[in-house]
Amino acid sequence: MSDWFVHTLRVRYQETDRMGVVYHANVLNWFEIGRTEWIRSLGVPYRKLEEAGLYLPVVEAEVRFHRPALYDDVVEVRTRVTDVTPAGIAFAYEIRRRDDGADVRSAEPDGGELLASGRTRHAWLNARWKPCRLDRQAPEVYALLERLRPVCREG
Amino acid sequence: MSDWFVHTLRVRYQETDRMGVVYHANVLNWFEIGRTEWIRSLGVPYRKLEEAGLYLPVVEAEVRFHRPALYDDVVEVRTRVTDVTPAGIAFAYEIRRRDDGADVRSAEPDGGELLASGRTRHAWLNARWKPCRLDRQAPEVYALLERLRPVCREG
Amino acid sequence: MSDWFVHTLRVRYQETDRMGVVYHANVLNWFEIGRTEWIRSLGVPYRKLEEAGLYLPVVEAEVRFHRPALYDDVVEVRTRVTDVTPAGIAFAYEIRRRDDGADVRSAEPDGGELLASGRTRHAWLNARWKPCRLDRQAPEVYALLERLRPVCREG
Amino acid sequence: MSDWFVHTLRVRYQETDRMGVVYHANVLNWFEIGRTEWIRSLGVPYRKLEEAGLYLPVVEAEVRFHRPALYDDVVEVRTRVTDVTPAGIAFAYEIRRRDDGADVRSAEPDGGELLASGRTRHAWLNARWKPCRLDRQAPEVYALLERLRPVCREG
Repeated sequence: MSDWFVHTLRVRYQETDRMGVVYHANVLNWFEIGRTEWIRSLGVPYRKLEEAGLYLPVVEAEVRFHRPALYDDVVEVRTRVTDVTPAGIAFAYEIRRRDDGADVRSAEPDGGELLASGRTRHAWLNARWKPCRLDRQAPEVYALLERLRPVCREG
Repeated sequence: MSDWFVHTLRVRYQETDRMGVVYHANVLNWFEIGRTEWIRSLGVPYRKLEEAGLYLPVVEAEVRFHRPALYDDVVEVRTRVTDVTPAGIAFAYEIRRRDDGADVRSAEPDGGELLASGRTRHAWLNARWKPCRLDRQAPEVYALLERLRPVCREG
Repeated sequence: MSDWFVHTLRVRYQETDRMGVVYHANVLNWFEIGRTEWIRSLGVPYRKLEEAGLYLPVVEAEVRFHRPALYDDVVEVRTRVTDVTPAGIAFAYEIRRRDDGADVRSAEPDGGELLASGRTRHAWLNARWKPCRLDRQAPEVYALLERLRPVCREG
Repeated sequence: MSDWFVHTLRVRYQETDRMGVVYHANVLNWFEIGRTEWIRSLGVPYRKLEEAGLYLPVVEAEVRFHRPALYDDVVEVRTRVTDVTPAGIAFAYEIRRRDDGADVRSAEPDGGELLASGRTRHAWLNARWKPCRLDRQAPEVYALLERLRPVCREG
């Protein structure tokens, strides 16, 4: 059993470029959609965190582009927490192409073709864009994320 | 002599799509760049208006796509005010392709190939997103814009 | 019963701007997603049309922005054919906000808040970007679309 | 004296997000603009390479986000080649904020505030998306790039 959180999306025409493939920078956008849906699945919409004055900007990002994603592809965005501290959080990602016939709504075993992989690191900031400690600003969210940590490290 | 305000830009790879041309929605972005540079040329950076709590969202937009813009083209964004009232402002635009050899920095007579044309209408809103009257909220900006009106109407 | 084809999507962070709302040009992208999913629902993925050398660029677009869409909103993109000829096709659209609790996957009666509405007009082009007649290039697709026409006109 | 190639651009409204800053993925777009303008400065527009059937997709990208870029900022995109082989090329980048009063058209010494830095690695592909050797496909371009190498390594 995989420890990836899987979210599927359909490649938009607007996301392609004249090379006939998805413009590379969009993969960072998909990574964001992956972590957003992951945290929503924990019962914490990211929007609510921002409404509470907590921001989580990207501090570092790395992407490897293995094969191009194409227009109208259904892709899986796979997201996994790789580190949680009071100051920040880190994720790993994979983008995989779904078989055309597969049901868009359910996860596929690891067979999907790997299109991109990467990592992002984030820092918690307060409403004045100063670093803050999540365990003090939102202890219940920190407790929730901390509980995930051992699973992540094993995964 | 033309009454268009002319701003040139270079088409970005990211702005193309797999049809090999500029993705159509980007023309609305270029219209915005046109009106932003026009108002900057009057000595009023749009950013300063927002810092003063004045917003100018698009209420209506219309675009006609005559020919596709291509990657790496230098295009002229031509902007003209067509209406000014205390409640809002309206613009007309043209997107024209520059000859490859032309100097990017100076305007070209009307000969450039017409790629798109359109109009936008905007309403002044205050910081709480409520309609407001520019002549009361920023009389000096309103006076500046009003003075342009007759010229525009002649144009 | 409505004659709109309804597709729902979740507003992405990347689609917002510093006004705190969805950047207006993205509505044209959503219109495209609406017509793409509509034609897929007829059994004709737009991608297949392009693979067959048929392109359907936007010739004209009009948008009215009624209220801003916000980050993380679930919005309905409602699409309806308004004209079909051998040379082109035209659509009308509405963007409506779904109630937060509503099931993302099923259509909502007309109650959703209207955020934007608009129309686009398209011309069929062949692989050399020349106008072509759909009834000659792809008679089976034309027959399919033509059959929809009376319904559209009534709706 | 710096060995960076410097290109300046103005931050667009569309590039911001609701955090009030530039959406992070746009930095990858700016990196591309940097390398495009760099290769143009050598007399080889990237568009011409693609027209000759040579593609240069991104294979790996890394970004560090130091401080947010803001709407209407003038930023310098600084680009430097870090490796050239027959199979590919690699670049380093910096994004720096220009002082508001500075002339947009001329480079500034290193004083500008560092907003982001990063690297990309690229592979040469032919028109069928297969790896190819630049020294065979376009020996004159390879010779041009190779001559830059020692300078880069010293820099």
